[in-house]
Amino acid sequence: MSTLTRFGISMDSQLLRRFDAFIREHAYANRSEAVRDLVRDRLVQKSWDQGNEEMVGTITLVFDHHQRDLTEKLTAQQHDHHETVLSAMHVHLDHFNCLEVLAVRGKARDIQSIADRLISVKGVKHGKLVMTATGEGL
Amino acid sequence: MSTLTRFGISMDSQLLRRFDAFIREHAYANRSEAVRDLVRDRLVQKSWDQGNEEMVGTITLVFDHHQRDLTEKLTAQQHDHHETVLSAMHVHLDHFNCLEVLAVRGKARDIQSIADRLISVKGVKHGKLVMTATGEGL
Amino acid sequence: MSTLTRFGISMDSQLLRRFDAFIREHAYANRSEAVRDLVRDRLVQKSWDQGNEEMVGTITLVFDHHQRDLTEKLTAQQHDHHETVLSAMHVHLDHFNCLEVLAVRGKARDIQSIADRLISVKGVKHGKLVMTATGEGL
Amino acid sequence: MSTLTRFGISMDSQLLRRFDAFIREHAYANRSEAVRDLVRDRLVQKSWDQGNEEMVGTITLVFDHHQRDLTEKLTAQQHDHHETVLSAMHVHLDHFNCLEVLAVRGKARDIQSIADRLISVKGVKHGKLVMTATGEGL
Repeated sequence: MSTLTRFGISMDSQLLRRFDAFIREHAYANRSEAVRDLVRDRLVQKSWDQGNEEMVGTITLVFDHHQRDLTEKLTAQQHDHHETVLSAMHVHLDHFNCLEVLAVRGKARDIQSIADRLISVKGVKHGKLVMTATGEGL
Repeated sequence: MSTLTRFGISMDSQLLRRFDAFIREHAYANRSEAVRDLVRDRLVQKSWDQGNEEMVGTITLVFDHHQRDLTEKLTAQQHDHHETVLSAMHVHLDHFNCLEVLAVRGKARDIQSIADRLISVKGVKHGKLVMTATGEGL
Repeated sequence: MSTLTRFGISMDSQLLRRFDAFIREHAYANRSEAVRDLVRDRLVQKSWDQGNEEMVGTITLVFDHHQRDLTEKLTAQQHDHHETVLSAMHVHLDHFNCLEVLAVRGKARDIQSIADRLISVKGVKHGKLVMTATGEGL
Repeated sequence: MSTLTRFGISMDSQLLRRFDAFIREHAYANRSEAVRDLVRDRLVQKSWDQGNEEMVGTITLVFDHHQRDLTEKLTAQQHDHHETVLSAMHVHLDHFNCLEVLAVRGKARDIQSIADRLISVKGVKHGKLVMTATGEGL
């Protein structure tokens, strides 16, 4: 189990005023919570750049489900990588368009490669990968 | 209904060789599909910068569900914005950590503000917003 | 003149260990300096998203100077916006390719528009805009 | 020497209308130039993610030159990496603040490491790295 440590930060009062305004605007409970968020975000970004840790991500896809065989292709690709794709959520945006979000877990390189393959399927209009972390050690 | 138009692109053969290698690596069916993807991605990015269209997005959150009252707070915030938050997917990453992905739809500014508020909640370890589009006109 | 304020931050010891490793790797003098950097970077990013402040930026261009009339076109465009373009640096990368970096200052919207126009000139192979701030209040 | 190749792209007329509006707004001479820019930008981004090529970049720093010993420290660090740092441009933003832009060339990993070290120096208020390419093969 880990414990809470407290340490001091010195900051120019002018910069601190701007940071406090940011904290209010984003509805952070206090400075500690805001600083922790900045630190965690920077660490996740670094892990993802280095590719040496197990990461968690989401792949967001927008597509027209009337496109022939598209749903089958996307489902087949997800099953080919069932050890990485944890689960999926499907939203009907309008008569034609769907949003599908996949939760994935694995090495950065593998996640990137699966995202590339899904986004490149004909009929997928837009796709984006978000990398986050398992939460361990954050 | 819209129709398919065909037009010619001239490209230096050296650049085209590199583009073709990119197309193979990403498993695109052909050059048209790859070019359309680059164009759509750029247009979505521009719409999002300008903030003048209805956008679709996903908010990815990683949090420790043992954190007191956290699940209630996150659920309450989602209900406060029920006209924007379309649906949610929850994944159990380990004994402590959860991944929650929300599908959202609305003005860029509103989506950003909801994401800021969810990400700033104490106990949320990491959060990211992805903006995509409704698929209309793409 | 502004003064230095000191405040306390509480952080889980496991997260702090990872942050301290990050601080060592990036050669920060201490935790305060690292936290200030994260805070400043986030504030600059927010100002740039909102577009309501005078910003400073650099526009990086890579181009083949043998391309006919290219240098004249780029110079003419810079003079058209002499109130925004502060200065320029030119580096010869090889027999064909040049790197040119412009320092710019103005409203985010104007800087973006000048960058778009320079990057779109035929012969410019790659271009990127970086937004930073005047340093005032940071 | 490389030659110009011409190939056809098929695109939904609705998407093409939006792309043409984008082309006008960014003052591209024609569709080919706009497509080439999207392709080059994607290739540069991929090279930079993979880190397996010699890259060119710019490091943008904003700092208060009254900060004790800062200029000396920054100059010393640049000289330590004289094989990577090609040249520098200095702009006086106001009585206190300076903008310094360095042109750098080398492996992505080395460039990133130099940027990290410069940005972490006390007194540097904001720093950003832009990666582009040598222009060869683009």
